[in-house]
Amino acid sequence: MLDDSSPARTVWHGRSWRLRVVPFSLPDGTVVERGFIDHPGSVVLVPVRDSAAGPEVLMIRQYRAAIGTTILELPAGTRGWEEAWLTCAQRELQEETGYRAAELTPLGEIWPAPGSSDELMQLYLARGLSHDPLPADVDEEITLEPHLLADLVEMARDGRIRDAKSIVGLWRAASLLAGSREP
Amino acid sequence: MLDDSSPARTVWHGRSWRLRVVPFSLPDGTVVERGFIDHPGSVVLVPVRDSAAGPEVLMIRQYRAAIGTTILELPAGTRGWEEAWLTCAQRELQEETGYRAAELTPLGEIWPAPGSSDELMQLYLARGLSHDPLPADVDEEITLEPHLLADLVEMARDGRIRDAKSIVGLWRAASLLAGSREP
Repeated sequence: MLDDSSPARTVWHGRSWRLRVVPFSLPDGTVVERGFIDHPGSVVLVPVRDSAAGPEVLMIRQYRAAIGTTILELPAGTRGWEEAWLTCAQRELQEETGYRAAELTPLGEIWPAPGSSDELMQLYLARGLSHDPLPADVDEEITLEPHLLADLVEMARDGRIRDAKSIVGLWRAASLLAGSREP
Repeated sequence: MLDDSSPARTVWHGRSWRLRVVPFSLPDGTVVERGFIDHPGSVVLVPVRDSAAGPEVLMIRQYRAAIGTTILELPAGTRGWEEAWLTCAQRELQEETGYRAAELTPLGEIWPAPGSSDELMQLYLARGLSHDPLPADVDEEITLEPHLLADLVEMARDGRIRDAKSIVGLWRAASLLAGSREP
């Protein structure tokens, strides 16, 4: 059980999230600590446009220092603590792809890591794209990499795409666009 | 860019993961800190058994202190730093559902939060279930809650299931079992 006699303490506070540590009493009386990430939430975009071969998605390829490699993923980003979700969605789309969307359709929300973090991700299908870039974050190395949606769904299903938020976003976008009820 | 002149420091170390903070130089010379979670990885199980109405999955309902609510999710758990993946998978299945599996089929791997954590999740379809419980973790409050796989896929698709790892696991399991190539 959480130990109310010892208060939680924030051990680190970064630009976007903080780590809070809470004492926790085991049945034998031992007190251990559990760490929780307080997070403002984030947005995930599935920017879709038509191509001759079918709908394509503006994926990005980005270096991720946490895992030490470059990955294929959907555009996404952290919300400011006071920022409106749709404002954040449009801003991240412009920063990471150079496009803004005339239409943002909700694709539900997900918890990426509810065991340790309260981060909630809001997913959106982004349509009606027009070129309208914003400067990228200085610490981001991003390349735009469009792929056919049909190919991406296969890559998400068979494991070639490993980024959890991207897998969920692509599947839900494809389902919505297809009106399909089959897995 | 990462600032090599100031070393990273570990600001907190819990039972399973630790927070490492790395100085980062902005183009104007300002140094800010970025936080990275060093994580041993985890396993996610999709335990499936037959029922008269079709395949059903042993889901769990668990209180998650980080988000302050009880959620429906797949059995899952953190690997010990030196633990073998399949050993971990069988152990977590027994602790959280009371069953062990005769067969564990890989469903790929995912990064739940590659922007801040190196956690890698290995997903497995678990079949040939037999009752063989292990004691649950003392800080876990878990209820077993079987559902039909077909119902769960709809819940994962339409947003009623919000746990990212569970959405990916259920979709991949349903695709493998159906041999389906449609979204």
